[in-house]
Amino acid sequence: MIAVLKENATEQQIRNLTEWFESQGVKVNRSQGDFVTILGLIGDTTKIDIDLLRGLDIVDNVMRITEPFKKANRKFHPEDSVIDVGGVKIGGGNFAVMAGPCSVESEEQIIETAKAVKEAGATLLRGGAYKPRTSPYDFQGLHEEGIRLLLKAKEITGLPIVSEIMSPEQLPVFEEVDCLQVGARNMQNFDLLKAIGKTQKPVLLKRGLSATIKELLMSAEYIMSEGNPNVILCERGIRTYETYTRNTFDVSAISVLKELTHLPVVGDPSHATGKASLIRPMSMAAVVSGADALEIEVHTAPEKALSDAAQQLKPDEFKGVMEAINKARSIL
Amino acid sequence: MIAVLKENATEQQIRNLTEWFESQGVKVNRSQGDFVTILGLIGDTTKIDIDLLRGLDIVDNVMRITEPFKKANRKFHPEDSVIDVGGVKIGGGNFAVMAGPCSVESEEQIIETAKAVKEAGATLLRGGAYKPRTSPYDFQGLHEEGIRLLLKAKEITGLPIVSEIMSPEQLPVFEEVDCLQVGARNMQNFDLLKAIGKTQKPVLLKRGLSATIKELLMSAEYIMSEGNPNVILCERGIRTYETYTRNTFDVSAISVLKELTHLPVVGDPSHATGKASLIRPMSMAAVVSGADALEIEVHTAPEKALSDAAQQLKPDEFKGVMEAINKARSIL
Amino acid sequence: MIAVLKENATEQQIRNLTEWFESQGVKVNRSQGDFVTILGLIGDTTKIDIDLLRGLDIVDNVMRITEPFKKANRKFHPEDSVIDVGGVKIGGGNFAVMAGPCSVESEEQIIETAKAVKEAGATLLRGGAYKPRTSPYDFQGLHEEGIRLLLKAKEITGLPIVSEIMSPEQLPVFEEVDCLQVGARNMQNFDLLKAIGKTQKPVLLKRGLSATIKELLMSAEYIMSEGNPNVILCERGIRTYETYTRNTFDVSAISVLKELTHLPVVGDPSHATGKASLIRPMSMAAVVSGADALEIEVHTAPEKALSDAAQQLKPDEFKGVMEAINKARSIL
Amino acid sequence: MIAVLKENATEQQIRNLTEWFESQGVKVNRSQGDFVTILGLIGDTTKIDIDLLRGLDIVDNVMRITEPFKKANRKFHPEDSVIDVGGVKIGGGNFAVMAGPCSVESEEQIIETAKAVKEAGATLLRGGAYKPRTSPYDFQGLHEEGIRLLLKAKEITGLPIVSEIMSPEQLPVFEEVDCLQVGARNMQNFDLLKAIGKTQKPVLLKRGLSATIKELLMSAEYIMSEGNPNVILCERGIRTYETYTRNTFDVSAISVLKELTHLPVVGDPSHATGKASLIRPMSMAAVVSGADALEIEVHTAPEKALSDAAQQLKPDEFKGVMEAINKARSIL
Repeated sequence: MIAVLKENATEQQIRNLTEWFESQGVKVNRSQGDFVTILGLIGDTTKIDIDLLRGLDIVDNVMRITEPFKKANRKFHPEDSVIDVGGVKIGGGNFAVMAGPCSVESEEQIIETAKAVKEAGATLLRGGAYKPRTSPYDFQGLHEEGIRLLLKAKEITGLPIVSEIMSPEQLPVFEEVDCLQVGARNMQNFDLLKAIGKTQKPVLLKRGLSATIKELLMSAEYIMSEGNPNVILCERGIRTYETYTRNTFDVSAISVLKELTHLPVVGDPSHATGKASLIRPMSMAAVVSGADALEIEVHTAPEKALSDAAQQLKPDEFKGVMEAINKARSIL
Repeated sequence: MIAVLKENATEQQIRNLTEWFESQGVKVNRSQGDFVTILGLIGDTTKIDIDLLRGLDIVDNVMRITEPFKKANRKFHPEDSVIDVGGVKIGGGNFAVMAGPCSVESEEQIIETAKAVKEAGATLLRGGAYKPRTSPYDFQGLHEEGIRLLLKAKEITGLPIVSEIMSPEQLPVFEEVDCLQVGARNMQNFDLLKAIGKTQKPVLLKRGLSATIKELLMSAEYIMSEGNPNVILCERGIRTYETYTRNTFDVSAISVLKELTHLPVVGDPSHATGKASLIRPMSMAAVVSGADALEIEVHTAPEKALSDAAQQLKPDEFKGVMEAINKARSIL
Repeated sequence: MIAVLKENATEQQIRNLTEWFESQGVKVNRSQGDFVTILGLIGDTTKIDIDLLRGLDIVDNVMRITEPFKKANRKFHPEDSVIDVGGVKIGGGNFAVMAGPCSVESEEQIIETAKAVKEAGATLLRGGAYKPRTSPYDFQGLHEEGIRLLLKAKEITGLPIVSEIMSPEQLPVFEEVDCLQVGARNMQNFDLLKAIGKTQKPVLLKRGLSATIKELLMSAEYIMSEGNPNVILCERGIRTYETYTRNTFDVSAISVLKELTHLPVVGDPSHATGKASLIRPMSMAAVVSGADALEIEVHTAPEKALSDAAQQLKPDEFKGVMEAINKARSIL
Repeated sequence: MIAVLKENATEQQIRNLTEWFESQGVKVNRSQGDFVTILGLIGDTTKIDIDLLRGLDIVDNVMRITEPFKKANRKFHPEDSVIDVGGVKIGGGNFAVMAGPCSVESEEQIIETAKAVKEAGATLLRGGAYKPRTSPYDFQGLHEEGIRLLLKAKEITGLPIVSEIMSPEQLPVFEEVDCLQVGARNMQNFDLLKAIGKTQKPVLLKRGLSATIKELLMSAEYIMSEGNPNVILCERGIRTYETYTRNTFDVSAISVLKELTHLPVVGDPSHATGKASLIRPMSMAAVVSGADALEIEVHTAPEKALSDAAQQLKPDEFKGVMEAINKARSIL
C-alpha cells in the first residue's frame, strides 16, 4: 500500500502517522520528493482501513498494490479450479450449461422443462424456489415445495440442480440441492456468505448490480476464507444509465475474472439483457470471452395464452442457442 | 398498468394475452390506434410481473401507472409519520441528529464520543457493532460487546442508540437497541426486512448503492407489509462514475422521497461524500431539501497519532456543523 | 406517443392540453379509465417536446411508441446498408478491420505500421491526426502533417484511411481521407454532424461516453437527414462505475443496433477496455455479436524504450488477434 | 506522478522505462520495495500520457499527484475570481441569478419573461437561440432572430444576457451577448473551447452529462490556457441509473469545485431535476453548498392551453423561489 501525503503535511504529522502504521505491524518506507512525501507500507496491510486513510487531512491519495483477495487469487493458485456440481465438472476446460425456468411453478412445468433442456444439451437444471422480488406483493416462489419439485426433476432426468438461497436458515432445505445460488442482491450479505462458507456446497455467486469486479472477488473470499473452496462466479449484467437492455452485460468482466482468479466463471445472458433475441449472440460472446459455463432461462410455457410470446426461451429456441454455443466452443 | 403492443401483433396473440390478463383477475381496456394497440390494465396489477411482460415478443413497452408501494405511499397517508426512537421523535417537524463513530472500538471511545456529541446537540448516538466490510480480513466490529458498550453509553448520556443489524439471528442481541439500521448492502436482503417487519422496532433503512428511489420504497414496503410501520429512510449516496467523492450524494432524492412518502427521511453526508470538509455544506443541503434527520460520523480520536488527521469529524468540528444545521433549520 | 394524465387533472386542463396537441397537428385519442386518463397522440409527434410534456403538472408519464429515428430505422429499410470506404465494403456481410496507431507520430511509424497491419489482414488504416485530449497541455496530434502522412501510407499500402475530424473547418483538410471519424466526445456536436451530413463522405460515428443506443441513432439521423447516408456506427465502451477496465464494452449494444438499424456497426475493443490482453477475447465477442467491422489500435513501437511494454498491440500480437477474428467469423 | 511497477518487471525493462521518462524531461526517483518498484516522476509530467503508461505491461498502477489543471487551480490563485458579466459581478461573494425560458420563442414571450424575472430579483436573462436537440426533427431555436430578441429584452430591462453557443462560426452573432453558454454536450468540444478562449467573453461552461469534476476543470483550462480567464463553471446534473429525476443533481460537486478552483460555480436545478417542484429545495441546496449563482428556467406561458401545466416555473412561482434563495443566502 502506498500513501501519498499532501504538500502541507508537517514533519510531526508524518511522524505520528508513521508511528501509527508501525503500531499496526506495518513497516514504513518513506520517500521524500520535492513536493510530496510518499509512504510505502510493507507487510500485512489487510487490516489497514483504506477509506479511513483516504479521509485523513494530510493524505492526498492511497493506492493498494497487492490485491486484497488471497484464496481466490490466480497468482497464488495458477491452475484453474474445477468444481464438481453433483457429478458435473465446471472449470479447467469443463464447460456446462445451466438451464431452466426463472421460477418453479408446478410439477408438470419443471419436469417438462428439465427433460427438454436435457435433450437440448443442458447439463444442469436451474429453477427458483425462493425468489427475491422487489415488491413484497409479487410472487415469492414455492419455497420448500419448489425444492421438492426440483429434486423430483433431478431424479427423473439426472440433471444436478442449482437454486437460489436467500438466508442461512434455509440451508437445511437446500441439503440435497447440488449448487447454491447467491443472487445479485445478496452478494454482500456477508452473514449468508459466511454461513455458506462453513459448508462444502458448490456456490454460484452472482455479481451485485453495481459491484466492481474486485468486490465480487472479495465476496468469494468471504466464502473461501471460511473453508469452502467451491465458488463459481457469475457475471449477470450491471446497472448503468442504458435502459434498452435490462442491465448491461459486462462481457469483458468474464475475461478479466479469468485473468485474476482460478475460480470458474459463468455468464448469464438472460438476466443481463432481459431480451430473448439477445440470448443467442450474448451466449456466444460469453463463451469466446472465456466463460466456463452459461446460465440460461428456458421454460415450456404451460399457459397456452403466453406460449408464443415468452421472454424466456422456449425449448426449441434453446436448441438453436445450444448449437450456437457449441460452435463458439469449437473455435477456442 | 399500460401495455403497448407491437405493430406486428396478430389478433390471435392479442386475444390470448387479454385472456391471460383476465385469468389474473385484471380487467383489460383495449384501445386500437392506426399503428399500435394499447391495453389498459385495470384492477390489482401488483401480481403482474412487469419484466415478464416487457419480454413478450408482441409487447413494445409497459408502463406502471399506479405506484406499486401502498403503505409507504403519501397518497394514502397524507400526514407525515412521526417515529418515536427511544423517546426522540423523528418526522412531522421533529428534527434529529444521529452522531457517533463508525465503529465502537472501546468503552472509553464510545462514552467520550457520546458525551461530546450530546453536548454539541446530537439527539441520538450511532455506532457500529457489526460492520459489513468488503473484505473478510477487515475488522468486523466488536459484536455483542459493542452493543453492550453502546447501551452503557446510553445509560450515561440518555441518548437512544442506533446500530446496524446484519441478519435476523442478531435480533435478540438488538433487543434494547432503540433503532435498527439496515445498511445499503442489505437493502434488498428481503429475509432480513421481513424479520424486522415482524417486530415493532424503529428501522433506519439505507438506500442501496445503486437502488432507485422506488426500490427503496419497495424495501420499506417489505417491512411495513409485515406489520412494522416504524420505518425511517436514509439517503447515503449512490454509486456513479464520479470518483472524487466516495459516492454521489443524491440530495434531490430527499425532496422526492418527502413528496412520495409520509415516512421520515434522513441524510447521511458522511458516507455519501467520504470527506470531512464536505460534511458541513452537505448537512445544510440535506436540511433545506427537507431531511427530517441527519446521520453524521463523529469520533474522539483515542489514538493520539491519528488525532489531527481524521476523516470523521472531531467533536469541536461537529459543534460547528451543528450550528450550521441549526441555521439551515431556522429558515424553513 | 402516449401521455398518461394524473388522477387530479381537471376536465378543463385535459381539454386545454388536447387543444394544444391538436394545434400542433396531432390527433388525440382519449381513453378514460377509472383512475387515469390516457391520451394517445396520433400523427407526426416528432415536434412534440417529450421533456416539456413530462414536466407538465397534470402529466404522470409519457411514452414514445414509434421510434424517433426514421432514416436509420431498419423498419423502413430492412436490408443492411453497405458502405463503400475507399473501395472497401462494410456491412451486409462485408467484414472489415480498421487498424493502426492511436496517433500518427512520424512518417516511419505510420508507414511501418500500415505495412504490418496490412500484412496481418487489416483492410483499413486508422490513425489520429487531430486528437481530442482531456488536457490542453497534452499532445494534440500532428494535424495537417498527420493527414499528409496517412495519405502517404495509403499510397504505399493501398489501405483506405480513417481519421478523426473535430470541427467543420477541418473538412477541406480531410478531402482525401476515406472515412471521417466522429469521436465519442463529439457525438452530440450537432453542428459538426450537420456539416458532415452535407458531404457524401463515409462517417464512423462513435457512441458517446454516456450516450444511450437511441441517442447514438438520433445522431446518425442528424447526418442522414442532411443527405449523407454513409454512416457507420461504433460501440467503443460506455462510462460506468467499474474502473478495472477503462470503460465497459457494451457488447450487447452491437446486437441491439443490428436489430434496430440497417447501418453497419463497428466494435472498438481497444478504447473500450484499455488493456492489451482483452483485445483478443473482446474482438471475438464483438464479431459473434454481429459487428460488421472492428477498430483496433496497433503500433510498431518506434521508441525502443517502450517497445516491450506497450498497451497497443504490436504487429505480431495483432496477427494472433486477426486469426481469432477469422475463427469467430467462420462460425457465423 | 507515481508509477507502480509489477513484481515481474525485469531490471532491463525498468531501466528502459526510466530512460524514456528522462528523455521526456522528467526526473525519476526509484524506490525499491520487497515486492514492488515505485518510480516517482518529478518535473513537468503534463506531457506524459497516463493512459499509455497504465497500459504498459510492466506497470501496475499510475497515480497523478499534482493536479493537471493549473490556471483554474485554487492552489496557485487562492482568491476567488470575480467575473463581470455585462456589469453584473459573479463570484467572490457576488451572487447572481440567471433566469428565463429554455428557448426564445417570440418577442412578446422573451420581453414579458425578462420583465417578470427582473421584477422577481433575477440579475441576468437566459434564453436559448441555438438549441442542441437530440433529434434533428425537433425545434432547433430561432438562431440569429433569437439573439436579436434577447438583445431587445436586454435593452428594455437592462438585464445582461446569457445564451448557448454551439460552434465557433457563431461567434460573430454572439458579439453583443454578455455571456456565452457552452452546453453539457459540448463540454469536450475542444475546438469550440479554444475558439472561445481566444476571446475575452465570459463563458458559462456546463459540466458534461458524464464528465468528472476534474474533466470539467480541464475543459475550463482549455479556455483559460488560450488567454480567456472569464470562466464560470456550472453543475447541471449528471447521468446515473436513477430515472425519477431527469439527471442526478451532484450538489456536492459545487462544494468540491469551490475547494479546487477560484472560478465561480453555478447550480442549474432546472436541467438537473426536470421537475418544477424540486427547483425550490434544490436552489437552496445549491446556495448552501457554496454556489455563486443559479440558472433557473422561467417562462410566461404564452400559449394559454399550457399555462397551468408547465414544467418551467411561472413568474409568480419564481418569486417564491427567489425568496427561498434569499433566505438561504442570509445564513451563509
